Amino acid sequence: MHILVTNDDGVQAPGLLALAQEIRKTGSTVTVFAPDRNWSASGHVKTLERPLRIQETMLADGTTAYASDGAPSDCVALPLLGFVDKVDLVVSGINPFSNIGHDVTYSGTVTAAMEAVITGVPGIAFSLASQDKPTNTLTDYGPAAQIARVVTEKVMLEGLPEGVVLNVNIPYLSVESIKGYIITRQGLRVYRDALDKRVDPRGRPYYWIGGEEPTGVNEEGTDVGALMAGYVSLTPLHLDLTHYKAMEVLKKWEF
Amino acid sequence: MHILVTNDDGVQAPGLLALAQEIRKTGSTVTVFAPDRNWSASGHVKTLERPLRIQETMLADGTTAYASDGAPSDCVALPLLGFVDKVDLVVSGINPFSNIGHDVTYSGTVTAAMEAVITGVPGIAFSLASQDKPTNTLTDYGPAAQIARVVTEKVMLEGLPEGVVLNVNIPYLSVESIKGYIITRQGLRVYRDALDKRVDPRGRPYYWIGGEEPTGVNEEGTDVGALMAGYVSLTPLHLDLTHYKAMEVLKKWEF
Repeated sequence: MHILVTNDDGVQAPGLLALAQEIRKTGSTVTVFAPDRNWSASGHVKTLERPLRIQETMLADGTTAYASDGAPSDCVALPLLGFVDKVDLVVSGINPFSNIGHDVTYSGTVTAAMEAVITGVPGIAFSLASQDKPTNTLTDYGPAAQIARVVTEKVMLEGLPEGVVLNVNIPYLSVESIKGYIITRQGLRVYRDALDKRVDPRGRPYYWIGGEEPTGVNEEGTDVGALMAGYVSLTPLHLDLTHYKAMEVLKKWEF
Repeated sequence: MHILVTNDDGVQAPGLLALAQEIRKTGSTVTVFAPDRNWSASGHVKTLERPLRIQETMLADGTTAYASDGAPSDCVALPLLGFVDKVDLVVSGINPFSNIGHDVTYSGTVTAAMEAVITGVPGIAFSLASQDKPTNTLTDYGPAAQIARVVTEKVMLEGLPEGVVLNVNIPYLSVESIKGYIITRQGLRVYRDALDKRVDPRGRPYYWIGGEEPTGVNEEGTDVGALMAGYVSLTPLHLDLTHYKAMEVLKKWEF
């Protein structure tokens, strides 16, 4: 198998290196192709209005990687459009924060995996629920990377249902302390953003989107609930956003 | 009612002006708040790592508008976080191209409406299926803007089910030629991207994501099918991306 490893935090992020090293242990051929800078909270971007560069570079362990000045989705599109040999699976991460609830629509980590699925290649997104704890070293990502390998091997064995993006969130615990794996549905985020108006040295106003860190509704069966209980959360996502029940309501409208 | 009008093409786009003018006819208070530049295919972005500026500006018809250097979602977040009085409804558009099938995950027009719904305010996205025909003037958007007003008035009357983003696509026809309104599900896009490798004047390679324009699977009941048949397509979307059926498959996995 040929596995593409990517992320949205940039090619030199420790989470990418940790993931690439573990994925190599599956015996698959691994290509690392990631953005040349951090694109966190970038959403699903495809660059059509400008050309893109691709640079051969090196990860901290001396292995080869490709970096592009495109967005995370571009770093999936370029290899899948033929820059490298046929890719069988795309894994994205490891993101230093969880991607749960509505986060999935903002997350570059998840949308990189979505881009793969749109192109017909299975995609998995891996995120580490570190909250506020620092995750700057390879060691910080060690347990999560081991879990990521277990999940990837499972997907290699079982396959994923067509059109499914597997969104995996891993608690920031030792492998021994993690309680197990739960298949979850997407939970609810509680965003606590607030408008923070300030005045610059020249007397002109500017605005931060500030406020508290988002929390989540701790409900059983959801990604939020699984993480809070110390489990790895596996959520199958798809790209059909239709609210089928609401269709019935709207069909009663008369124009 | 207080309606926020926004888009992803920038505050000076003719589609925004056409929409704002028609929405004013509903008798609602209208605030226009849009990005200061074009953010097409920007996805769902929230700007947390830098402060944002807000500039009071003027549309081509002399009415007041606000422009921000943030992304489309920021132009929803800033007013909803309190920059203006309480907003009851957010309308986004009119986008010069359709947003159907998988487009909805890339579309700044749709994600602006999503941002509203995440904050608890109903959101509608309007797109004009102009395909390759030019849409540079206010007149080009006239019929679509009239349709947008009809849909907005319907939503003002009936409300939207909770959590629903209404994704509206309008054929590029005269009002009389449009056959009616259909409630649809999200269809399938067929992307035909291709890697286009070139060499710059200094002999270094660069890459375009090129290829043909995307097509769609013309299936009855979908946004793609409705547009092709000359109908306005109304698709209720939601932000729960869980693939519930796939959960049952994954639950059989043993770790």
